Amino acid sequence: MVDHIAFVGVGLIGGSLALALKQSGFCRKTTGYARNLANLELAKKLGVLDYLADNVSDAVKDADIIVLAVPLGAMEGILGEIRETAKPDAIITDVGSAKGVVVRLANEIMPERLGYLVPAHPIAGKEHSGVAHAEAGLFKDHFTILTPTSKTRKEALGRITAMWEVTEAKIVCMEVEHHDQVLAATSHLPHMLAYLLVHMLTKLETEKEVFRYAAGGFYDFTRIASSSPEMWRDICLHNQGPILDMLKKYRSEIDGLIEILQSGDGEGLRSLFEGAKKRRDQLIAEKDAEVH
Amino acid sequence: MVDHIAFVGVGLIGGSLALALKQSGFCRKTTGYARNLANLELAKKLGVLDYLADNVSDAVKDADIIVLAVPLGAMEGILGEIRETAKPDAIITDVGSAKGVVVRLANEIMPERLGYLVPAHPIAGKEHSGVAHAEAGLFKDHFTILTPTSKTRKEALGRITAMWEVTEAKIVCMEVEHHDQVLAATSHLPHMLAYLLVHMLTKLETEKEVFRYAAGGFYDFTRIASSSPEMWRDICLHNQGPILDMLKKYRSEIDGLIEILQSGDGEGLRSLFEGAKKRRDQLIAEKDAEVH
Repeated sequence: MVDHIAFVGVGLIGGSLALALKQSGFCRKTTGYARNLANLELAKKLGVLDYLADNVSDAVKDADIIVLAVPLGAMEGILGEIRETAKPDAIITDVGSAKGVVVRLANEIMPERLGYLVPAHPIAGKEHSGVAHAEAGLFKDHFTILTPTSKTRKEALGRITAMWEVTEAKIVCMEVEHHDQVLAATSHLPHMLAYLLVHMLTKLETEKEVFRYAAGGFYDFTRIASSSPEMWRDICLHNQGPILDMLKKYRSEIDGLIEILQSGDGEGLRSLFEGAKKRRDQLIAEKDAEVH
Repeated sequence: MVDHIAFVGVGLIGGSLALALKQSGFCRKTTGYARNLANLELAKKLGVLDYLADNVSDAVKDADIIVLAVPLGAMEGILGEIRETAKPDAIITDVGSAKGVVVRLANEIMPERLGYLVPAHPIAGKEHSGVAHAEAGLFKDHFTILTPTSKTRKEALGRITAMWEVTEAKIVCMEVEHHDQVLAATSHLPHMLAYLLVHMLTKLETEKEVFRYAAGGFYDFTRIASSSPEMWRDICLHNQGPILDMLKKYRSEIDGLIEILQSGDGEGLRSLFEGAKKRRDQLIAEKDAEVH
């Protein structure tokens, strides 16, 4: 049981976590601050937050745990404010989709607090953002990856692990750099590809028709292109290296397919498609087996 | 009311069409032939077909309408058999995802029957193939595109239009070449991209982890990579030009994104993502408005 958790940022992820922690009784009270006042007030109305603060410092000053649920681009300024006002033993965690940047900034801005930093990344979400879409069950059965550093104190890691256990997330620990590479492949690259497809089609002369005749497959494929542009800008800028690496790998695959197709190599096409289908079907079967 | 419709190929699409036509009473009897005997017998068991034939010639010889529901690669041989045995005024239609190839082959193989050729493409499907997944309502509210040529007789077009009306599909006519370009963008390209993504990820050293941490977005994105490899090989080989064109356009978009990302241009990233998100959200709103 924790007395007081402060949320900086209460969008879909921060809001859902706050709800889960409140409903379970993991903490006695929640305070929140967000730049968007309407969102902040909605968070109180929805029972996500008990108290609202006017700024980051007021939100975090008495907190035992501080959850940073803001776009990665806002992290730097916020860490500076936390450094000044948080209790010395306040545990600081976040929910960002890239983890290297968080560790690097904390190292620069508040090296004396590194023992209390437990970077985290819940792999859950929807294409809709905002606290209005928050739900306590959002993380259930999804992975939450923790990336403690060599300096993270055991008690802090234990406390944040316990916090995520309340949400029924599947918790794993991973090296910071490794996390950023794996996520670039499994999440960041698909988002880039979906955005690029819609972007490209809007530029075609036939774009109206192209979208008119788009079938279900197209809408599934591009669902993630409805995600928040600001959030994805920040993820790109803060996981630049691994994402560039994946984009270049993907470009080579396109080159390969163009070559196969240009040479009319039917067996090459079939074998590529079949390999992909088999792997995906196998993944789906494994997922189903896990659930049932 | 048509007396006798022959189906060459009874997979998901052929089977669903046969079901819809039988249930509505549009035709008195259906005969079918398929290379896969188990699938053919299942089609009879499921009530999709009344009679089974041992070969294409036997299936089509008495038919008033012949529906070719086979992979595009099988079209050439089948048209040769039809030429020899079908009634001179039998109407020939198909359900292939590329239309130029059908017209070109018919032109080469059975020029005297061009007046009775009505190429068609129902834009409906699932990632699962086979008659076991057939359902009479598969085409309802989806587009079916007809691509009659300058030689197609009005009566033949009228008859095939009436046939698709029975399925409650939204029927439109389009030029053959235009169809192939539009579909390359809206359907064929996304399939290539989904196959390529899974293909690429399977080659990563971290592939097990990458797939382990894949979230819902990844599975939506790659759903179409579970489609039939043989069907997509044939679509690629028979709509090669437009698909190559789209792949090259997409490659340029990746080049563009790599450049923006390499230069750390946050506003460029945000603006690209926002444009794509806005267009997609607008399409979803339009679709919803159509349905309600």
